[in-house]
Amino acid sequence: MRKIKKALISIYDKKNIKNLLKILDKFNIEIISSGGTFKEIKKLGFKSIEISQYTNYPEILGGRVKTLHPKIHGGILMKRADKKHKLESRMNAFSEIDLVVVNFYPFQKVLKKTNNQNKIIENIDIGGPTLVRAAAKNFKDVTVVTNPNQYDEVIFQLLKHNGSTSLDLREKLSSEAFTETGYYDSLISNYFNSLQKNKFPKKKLFYANLVEKLRYGENPHQEASIYSKNSLELIKLNGKKLSYNNYNDIFAALNISKTLPRNKGTVIVKHANPCGVSASNSKIQSFKLALKCDPLSAFGGIVSCNFKINKKVAKEISNIFFEVIIGNGFDKDALKILKKKKNLRLIDSSKVTTNNNLDIVSNFNTLMLQSSDNKKFSLKDFKIVSKAKPSTKTLKNLIFAFNVCRFVKSNAIILANENSTIGIGSGQPSRLDSCRIAINKYKKFQNNLNGEILAASDAFFPFVDGFEELVQAGVTAIIQPSGSIRDKEIIKFANDTGTKLVFSKTRHFKH
Amino acid sequence: MRKIKKALISIYDKKNIKNLLKILDKFNIEIISSGGTFKEIKKLGFKSIEISQYTNYPEILGGRVKTLHPKIHGGILMKRADKKHKLESRMNAFSEIDLVVVNFYPFQKVLKKTNNQNKIIENIDIGGPTLVRAAAKNFKDVTVVTNPNQYDEVIFQLLKHNGSTSLDLREKLSSEAFTETGYYDSLISNYFNSLQKNKFPKKKLFYANLVEKLRYGENPHQEASIYSKNSLELIKLNGKKLSYNNYNDIFAALNISKTLPRNKGTVIVKHANPCGVSASNSKIQSFKLALKCDPLSAFGGIVSCNFKINKKVAKEISNIFFEVIIGNGFDKDALKILKKKKNLRLIDSSKVTTNNNLDIVSNFNTLMLQSSDNKKFSLKDFKIVSKAKPSTKTLKNLIFAFNVCRFVKSNAIILANENSTIGIGSGQPSRLDSCRIAINKYKKFQNNLNGEILAASDAFFPFVDGFEELVQAGVTAIIQPSGSIRDKEIIKFANDTGTKLVFSKTRHFKH
Repeated sequence: MRKIKKALISIYDKKNIKNLLKILDKFNIEIISSGGTFKEIKKLGFKSIEISQYTNYPEILGGRVKTLHPKIHGGILMKRADKKHKLESRMNAFSEIDLVVVNFYPFQKVLKKTNNQNKIIENIDIGGPTLVRAAAKNFKDVTVVTNPNQYDEVIFQLLKHNGSTSLDLREKLSSEAFTETGYYDSLISNYFNSLQKNKFPKKKLFYANLVEKLRYGENPHQEASIYSKNSLELIKLNGKKLSYNNYNDIFAALNISKTLPRNKGTVIVKHANPCGVSASNSKIQSFKLALKCDPLSAFGGIVSCNFKINKKVAKEISNIFFEVIIGNGFDKDALKILKKKKNLRLIDSSKVTTNNNLDIVSNFNTLMLQSSDNKKFSLKDFKIVSKAKPSTKTLKNLIFAFNVCRFVKSNAIILANENSTIGIGSGQPSRLDSCRIAINKYKKFQNNLNGEILAASDAFFPFVDGFEELVQAGVTAIIQPSGSIRDKEIIKFANDTGTKLVFSKTRHFKH
Repeated sequence: MRKIKKALISIYDKKNIKNLLKILDKFNIEIISSGGTFKEIKKLGFKSIEISQYTNYPEILGGRVKTLHPKIHGGILMKRADKKHKLESRMNAFSEIDLVVVNFYPFQKVLKKTNNQNKIIENIDIGGPTLVRAAAKNFKDVTVVTNPNQYDEVIFQLLKHNGSTSLDLREKLSSEAFTETGYYDSLISNYFNSLQKNKFPKKKLFYANLVEKLRYGENPHQEASIYSKNSLELIKLNGKKLSYNNYNDIFAALNISKTLPRNKGTVIVKHANPCGVSASNSKIQSFKLALKCDPLSAFGGIVSCNFKINKKVAKEISNIFFEVIIGNGFDKDALKILKKKKNLRLIDSSKVTTNNNLDIVSNFNTLMLQSSDNKKFSLKDFKIVSKAKPSTKTLKNLIFAFNVCRFVKSNAIILANENSTIGIGSGQPSRLDSCRIAINKYKKFQNNLNGEILAASDAFFPFVDGFEELVQAGVTAIIQPSGSIRDKEIIKFANDTGTKLVFSKTRHFKH
């Protein structure tokens, strides 16, 4: 237990400070404060000594130097049980400061508001973090408070222990204090790195805020939580708590949704893999065609529509068991229908912004960072290499299919018809096997198709065999990255069979 | 350009300081220094003023407070072009400090050496980070140096610009300075969180050191780098530069290798999925059986042996085209054989420690964190639910197969015989499809097997159909998590067909 006799308060965010001041007053705790905090304390009807008066040194440089004084830091950092420290404090006329209440200039907020570098830099707090770090280092003797949401537990302890705090609390607050200072400087470090377009600095810092602790991870014996850089952009409108696998599937679905033609696309995801994707001017058609690709696998999956879900679609959706429905908003009467299922998770994705950050994957104490595979295609990225030339419509359909395959685990083969997938082969070490899986799906669930059957491959065909099986199954146009030593053989086969063949300059592995 | 007239030096790591001191001397730059740095400068034959003499305030609290003085911080933080600042500096008798050279108490090193909390806490530097942050904030006027490896570029500029530095350099150094302070406090924050067993704090900080920038990411249009918490534990002995996909495959392989019986296991990975896994007392058998599971897919894949690779295995390996060979060490003559292929990447994994960290996956400004799926099985985790009882040998074989399926993308079905996989079905939204893929592999590549054919499923069978196809294909023992509403139906089917059925308490989804 440590009795608090003197406190230093220097806060930017003055929320709820009155609650704390009342208790400090109750226990006759002396207060030192600076500039704006001093005025606020006075305004609220409490007493405090101004720092410049306490140190006998003026506040200088427009507030840049206020608290950086040995009388302050000696008072914070001295070990109460150390005789030499005691002696030095007497010789140099400083005394113990037992409680430090500080929060920082709002660097993050200012960063969001302005691009003015001078303003941003002026909001890098120097004195605040120093006070906090000094107090946090000396937590055996000193209590450090860095956030208004900590006031309540400090007040509770002061009341309970007659003006003292416990070591446990002080250690916890110290841990939170170093997290605050580390977080603050991570923000600044990332700001400078982005100014300097330095994506991969020698030392890299990441910061994140807890969104929620999850019941468990991918499996019940794994612990898990979800964090966000700022706040979560997904809005849950209904249903049970989201699980780790729900989140994972939602993100997989959104990645695809965000690249489909606006207000036209439906994606159905199962086990983080799409099992149906469609784009159509008719919302109901878009959903029905996505479902038709593999209605068996869709069971228990999640649906993501990049359009506002209307009553008609909601009715259709509610005939099937899904875990999650994502919409770019919901019509009122659609929501009414879907909310009848209490457990059904409904997610509004209209606030979700496209991911422009680096993707991170961790393994064995390493982090692998890469820019997302969100390159937008233009017609220049493709080259027609067969004698038979695809129509513009066919080319657009091919590009639709090729776009889907970048979100399918490699090796990926997509069969498509009229901007809808009709067969998805995924996750195979052999490209031939992925072809067969896609063909089997197509044969199982489709009949009486109008228009051409098209195929997309996420990487080149190493042999002609898979290509051949696609053509035998009725595929008349294929899109694939080039790069195989057998490219010529494949072009020849395409020409021999009258197949339209388009080469892409980009590959889309996803592991 | 900013002329440097006065420098403050306070360094723990004194490496190469002489090089810098020579140049400061050349340009008659005045030096202020503290404690150990003062002594070192004197020893090297240069002059400096001790901080306590400069501030006219003693060094107190055993060095805890040395530089926290307004005369120092005023000198660093004053804006040179600001008339009011100028005036204040004259009134309060402080003068411009233009260069700050600081590195911190070695918190990270001490952390590795000791568990003594007092020692660890004493190595939290307070004065150093404050000097650095103040100088970095005022980079428009001040040069900040936080690492001996920056001396050369500062020396270069001082020589080139006759004792001045450029704004560009100062901004870059400032960015690196805030990275250092953020990194330092991230270490401290993580230390306290691990003390308090707080895996998922409200704010979470991650730090990482660049290992290397990669040529590109999963695809050529993606930028990528690999970072490590400390240093990379993989040792590359031969071959081309590792690519993003190489690293990804290596980690996938090591995850499996590390769980196989010691010095007995081989894994072959393609597209981050295993296409063959085996454990055998004979090293050569272990490799051959892993290869036999799917020799076609193995082509261009990577091999990981959790034993020291000998000459015999090396010879066998070098008959096939692989991208990477990982060994728990290599015999000299094995290395000689394998090094004949100049491009073949050889990795020594003997220094790689098992991952006890949280796994991280990033999506749309979020991070999902979970503990790794590295639970070790004991017999208590399983329950024999069929009338036919597996022998101990069969049970061990089943557990081998079940262990493999936790590393196979869901849905995962593993067929196994004698501690070797003979069919792997992966990455399907439908469990039935995964069964069929595994069965097809088995039929394609295996004949004349001795012993039982076993199967493992990463999650429960939702219907009896997949289970039935496995039994029809010759599987006589199956291991799977329980939890389906049709569990009873499946037990009945097992009993009707004399199949041995083991239920696991854990599931192993991997998406």
